[in-house]
Amino acid sequence: MDAIRVGLIGTGYIGMVHLEMLRRIAGVEVAAVADANRELAGSAAERLGIPKVYANASELIADPGIDVIHDCVPNHVHFAINAEAIRAGKDVLSEKPLALNARESSELVALAAERSALTAVNFCYRYYPVVQEAAARVRRGDLGEVRAFLGHFLQDWLFYDTDYSWRLDPAVAGAANVIADLGSHWCDLVQFVTGRRIVEVMAELHTCLPRRRKPKGGPLSFSSARAESSEDVEIKLDDFAAMFLRLDNGARGNFTTCQVAAGRKVDIELQVFGSQESYAWSHVHPNALWIGRRDRGNELFYESGALQAEETQKYAALPTGHPMGYHDAVYNLFRDYYEALAAKRAGKPFEARFPDFATGHVEMCVIDAAVESARTGRWTKVGR
Amino acid sequence: MDAIRVGLIGTGYIGMVHLEMLRRIAGVEVAAVADANRELAGSAAERLGIPKVYANASELIADPGIDVIHDCVPNHVHFAINAEAIRAGKDVLSEKPLALNARESSELVALAAERSALTAVNFCYRYYPVVQEAAARVRRGDLGEVRAFLGHFLQDWLFYDTDYSWRLDPAVAGAANVIADLGSHWCDLVQFVTGRRIVEVMAELHTCLPRRRKPKGGPLSFSSARAESSEDVEIKLDDFAAMFLRLDNGARGNFTTCQVAAGRKVDIELQVFGSQESYAWSHVHPNALWIGRRDRGNELFYESGALQAEETQKYAALPTGHPMGYHDAVYNLFRDYYEALAAKRAGKPFEARFPDFATGHVEMCVIDAAVESARTGRWTKVGR
Amino acid sequence: MDAIRVGLIGTGYIGMVHLEMLRRIAGVEVAAVADANRELAGSAAERLGIPKVYANASELIADPGIDVIHDCVPNHVHFAINAEAIRAGKDVLSEKPLALNARESSELVALAAERSALTAVNFCYRYYPVVQEAAARVRRGDLGEVRAFLGHFLQDWLFYDTDYSWRLDPAVAGAANVIADLGSHWCDLVQFVTGRRIVEVMAELHTCLPRRRKPKGGPLSFSSARAESSEDVEIKLDDFAAMFLRLDNGARGNFTTCQVAAGRKVDIELQVFGSQESYAWSHVHPNALWIGRRDRGNELFYESGALQAEETQKYAALPTGHPMGYHDAVYNLFRDYYEALAAKRAGKPFEARFPDFATGHVEMCVIDAAVESARTGRWTKVGR
Amino acid sequence: MDAIRVGLIGTGYIGMVHLEMLRRIAGVEVAAVADANRELAGSAAERLGIPKVYANASELIADPGIDVIHDCVPNHVHFAINAEAIRAGKDVLSEKPLALNARESSELVALAAERSALTAVNFCYRYYPVVQEAAARVRRGDLGEVRAFLGHFLQDWLFYDTDYSWRLDPAVAGAANVIADLGSHWCDLVQFVTGRRIVEVMAELHTCLPRRRKPKGGPLSFSSARAESSEDVEIKLDDFAAMFLRLDNGARGNFTTCQVAAGRKVDIELQVFGSQESYAWSHVHPNALWIGRRDRGNELFYESGALQAEETQKYAALPTGHPMGYHDAVYNLFRDYYEALAAKRAGKPFEARFPDFATGHVEMCVIDAAVESARTGRWTKVGR
Repeated sequence: MDAIRVGLIGTGYIGMVHLEMLRRIAGVEVAAVADANRELAGSAAERLGIPKVYANASELIADPGIDVIHDCVPNHVHFAINAEAIRAGKDVLSEKPLALNARESSELVALAAERSALTAVNFCYRYYPVVQEAAARVRRGDLGEVRAFLGHFLQDWLFYDTDYSWRLDPAVAGAANVIADLGSHWCDLVQFVTGRRIVEVMAELHTCLPRRRKPKGGPLSFSSARAESSEDVEIKLDDFAAMFLRLDNGARGNFTTCQVAAGRKVDIELQVFGSQESYAWSHVHPNALWIGRRDRGNELFYESGALQAEETQKYAALPTGHPMGYHDAVYNLFRDYYEALAAKRAGKPFEARFPDFATGHVEMCVIDAAVESARTGRWTKVGR
Repeated sequence: MDAIRVGLIGTGYIGMVHLEMLRRIAGVEVAAVADANRELAGSAAERLGIPKVYANASELIADPGIDVIHDCVPNHVHFAINAEAIRAGKDVLSEKPLALNARESSELVALAAERSALTAVNFCYRYYPVVQEAAARVRRGDLGEVRAFLGHFLQDWLFYDTDYSWRLDPAVAGAANVIADLGSHWCDLVQFVTGRRIVEVMAELHTCLPRRRKPKGGPLSFSSARAESSEDVEIKLDDFAAMFLRLDNGARGNFTTCQVAAGRKVDIELQVFGSQESYAWSHVHPNALWIGRRDRGNELFYESGALQAEETQKYAALPTGHPMGYHDAVYNLFRDYYEALAAKRAGKPFEARFPDFATGHVEMCVIDAAVESARTGRWTKVGR
Repeated sequence: MDAIRVGLIGTGYIGMVHLEMLRRIAGVEVAAVADANRELAGSAAERLGIPKVYANASELIADPGIDVIHDCVPNHVHFAINAEAIRAGKDVLSEKPLALNARESSELVALAAERSALTAVNFCYRYYPVVQEAAARVRRGDLGEVRAFLGHFLQDWLFYDTDYSWRLDPAVAGAANVIADLGSHWCDLVQFVTGRRIVEVMAELHTCLPRRRKPKGGPLSFSSARAESSEDVEIKLDDFAAMFLRLDNGARGNFTTCQVAAGRKVDIELQVFGSQESYAWSHVHPNALWIGRRDRGNELFYESGALQAEETQKYAALPTGHPMGYHDAVYNLFRDYYEALAAKRAGKPFEARFPDFATGHVEMCVIDAAVESARTGRWTKVGR
Repeated sequence: MDAIRVGLIGTGYIGMVHLEMLRRIAGVEVAAVADANRELAGSAAERLGIPKVYANASELIADPGIDVIHDCVPNHVHFAINAEAIRAGKDVLSEKPLALNARESSELVALAAERSALTAVNFCYRYYPVVQEAAARVRRGDLGEVRAFLGHFLQDWLFYDTDYSWRLDPAVAGAANVIADLGSHWCDLVQFVTGRRIVEVMAELHTCLPRRRKPKGGPLSFSSARAESSEDVEIKLDDFAAMFLRLDNGARGNFTTCQVAAGRKVDIELQVFGSQESYAWSHVHPNALWIGRRDRGNELFYESGALQAEETQKYAALPTGHPMGYHDAVYNLFRDYYEALAAKRAGKPFEARFPDFATGHVEMCVIDAAVESARTGRWTKVGR
């Protein structure tokens, strides 16, 4: 069968992760890359043997030799590129958040349906094997009814006032920083694991560092280099956020996120308390699921292709005890997507288990509600 | 010097912890115990060689041979006993929460001042050695300015609908259950470690189990025995609560507490993020303080009589590596209290480093604000 | 009933732990203390309200008002004091190692039997609640047959060449340092948990720091103070030791101990692998027992007065989640001893579950075999 | 530049890991696979789009279109294939142990030198980023002089007597099972991290399960399927081993390995104690290095492309906090190898930092000495 040909737009940090994990997918070739910074795109292409380089996203999208677009650009261009790609008849795997707001993401969902595009959003954390296991246990009833949940997503890459990112600029990032960037991941985890919808939120957005030094060059995310030439700018977007949540069955939750938490790197925690048992997962030790019980010892369940629920075993591809990492989580999502895409192209039935644009829109609605709640100081219902 | 003579009221679980740790305090004798359940009091007295037993708190308080009252009764009687004890000229060490509401606690603070009673409230968690160390580091500036904080206090002893406690009965517990019982401890930790006041809160109180089986006999807290004869009762108080908090310097925090979290026992966590470093402490591994940094490895600081800040070394009384436990935390608080009391009785100057009724009132004000906030769905200022 | 009157000899670090935990035992009074350093003994007595102070062990032992001797002196005097105490008709609770060698300890066992002395050795680590639970699980067959085991006991208080202790001086400590001091504790844990005897060993003793600065004053153990006046001495005793072990059922084990392991404080680990499941316990997190399984998730069993094997519940005296510490382990041993002693004095039957002089002799035999094995470079049978 | 063309022999578990990680290496193509089980090889080739399949290793080696051989067959064929491949002018990346004994491995080293073959052995655990960091810290003197070390490598895949593997058959595995299979990895870690040679050992090999059910079909390693048709066989090779070790500077170490340790999966631990600080690494949480200190808090150093020693930063390719896994460790080794190979082919200078056949021979010598020591019950010098 002919290879599926990918065009990737945005060769920054996360674009490079996409490119590297795409190499692991059998039957897929990266045919072209594009980046506003053509030099960056060119160097990625050379290193990875990618035949074509575009400086312009539209040119890449127009290339008839491309089947699938990977959208790895900053937030404010997500909508335009995703829409253009679908209109050009491509299938699309996009970074999150899917768009700047729920109006945009809703439009993308409709567009994808209209054009029968197979879409995905890279909510990769749900693809750690034991996160899949937790969701499977909820589905088969082990947890009982979910009663309460809590967690956080903490980082420190914006700790110094000399740290700067486009994510702090409303013109690029949208109405929120950390609640959108990290909160959307966490809300996806909650809804994926519990199988329930977040229906109402109360949020607090706060800017711990209201002034920062913005480098004149413009740094990449996660860069720790201190800029030599910089200007003083006022920061209005959140670097700390908190959110109470209510699920559609009445369960209550609480979430905290922060990007100035010295020593916390990609520290995600989710605890879910049910009527029969509890689950806890931490990205700091992502290979084990904690299972809490009242009447006997708690369990530490390690990812396992042998012991996990059957439908999740393929995500734990190594013999138990060989830890899977972040790369493997991204790969697991990509593999699900491309298996479905191969089936679609072959005219075969397939199950789309991965997060798609509809999922991306769901998270967008939660973020919009959070922003609105923080503005009004009131509980706010999540739209659809 | 003559021994200080203690009378303890309430010989349930926490009363027994008091009695056992009082034995470790040199120069202190327990002269009498009282409990509404005289049999319970009698058996404690016999086991521990305590000379007098009263069935009635007032009789014990009236005993001129008693110098200090330990108030270990349920919440709704705290005020009356604390007040009566002070009026009788006793010094008082009370369990928390200090009273049913801030009006009552305020009255107790005034009364104690008027009568020069030396008071304490058993906020024992701050007496783990590394919690003291965290506070000392904040005081000397290591943390920098506190920017954000978060944490939880989780238990599972109310997990089943057959679990019942007087803490779920508004007539005994007051306007709230878990936010008062566990939240007051956590707020004390935050304010003690940061050295700052909580000035505004937004809270959510929720009842995960709105119906329970209430045993006809009336169980003690923490009892896991399933009652044989019980009645169905509606529960109105919270078994889950969440609270956003603002400190007097503008720092933001978030707290979750729950007593139906299967597998979580006395799972307290506090994370504080400052402008220079971060601290995290968990009661599950209470002997180590996590110190987070952006530019080098994080630190795990183990309690140590040699390496801690000088004024906190006495709380780490064993050679480093011999873990202190809950008993030792209670003992540390008692020792501070009785050292001050001995000084007071000897007419010597002393430093009251332990939480006193003023501290208890501060926590009461936070809880009152939380209850009000949950009622109105609005941010609420903390009174004084 | 009259109180049991204790006389304690040796008021250094471990003597003070004894005194403090003795205060928690109902029905027991410390009537006298003795120490070669009379000032030290006097200050302890004054602080704790102990009526008599002797500078001389023999005088204390001769005191007819004393019922029980606590022997907390350095190793080389253990034998003499224990023997003298038994001969004087006292019951004895001794620190470990019981004597300098198995010949001495054997004599003490015989003497105790002859005089019907109730004896104990302070192998306190087995008195953490979940260590008791592990042993109970082995007894009832949960582990199956023990197949293999391993572990270590690491410290760093001899890390610098300016650290010195009488434990490094053969005239005081005997033929070995770390293998006797820490190894005897670990071997007791193994034999207690597995219920089996160590029958053969192969050992390696090594001196990592062959020269040290010995303070002219003579420091206490665990003191981190650097001496101001010191002399250069050659060290012949071990500060690192390793030992292969064989149990009486053929199970194999391996143990490492070291006192120059920077950052390790009282880091004890024991892992036992059986034909049905595995147990692991670490003194760094002493409240949980790890239970390993092949075919399902591993378990983290937290100390619990409700969930542990019935005969061990009394050692987990606090509601689950309130961590017990080192003090509580020592207290648990003392309580078992004094309950038995009270029964003995009352002429009632009792079960001596605590380690006694026979246990102390068993550990002495293992240490003697280890020293012999290290000398010859050969596997060596453990005598009886 | 032309791609480097790989031929891989042995498409079992570890062969598939090689194939998947080879896909991530730019400039490398897998041109052919071979396996005695042609069906297995064929299915791997089809799944991964590999053009050629051989049932016979020699045919693949003879293929002039192949540049590099990956040798992933069982132990007893390692020597023959490695030798044949070198003689055919190929470069070779082999699985460990390099051969059945040091005589064979010595011959391979000589052969590789003679033919200028670029060789590697897949000691992948040293390629976790923080293991590289530990070695770098030793090189730059942070540790001081290494004094002592210890650790283990525990698994449970041979826990049941119905578990069987060719590794238990001396005709296939050689003179030892677990000490060769897992011990060689651990000895490589020790020598890599400390930069020192193991010069003398004392070993104990033991067979916990002397009888097993051998499936008539012949299972793969790590398979947990219970065979339906099986025969009773006597097992002579070790499933438990212990080893004392001496380094060339006199440092002492101790190691335990076991494959019947229920609940332990790929549980590798290494602790190294130096004259200035200590390091500990566990494969259960492979992303953090513990750094122990006597005079201040211990450090938990998380893998980081920013904070690690410069020459090791490339192994921590993701932003700090995105955990690397086992796949990434294998990839890191492969990347080092293929970078060197590309340089060699281009006639450029290169540094061979990866473990090569000389390294494989060094580990072989330790294993041979361990087997000899266990046979004689004596300390045994490690040959060269």
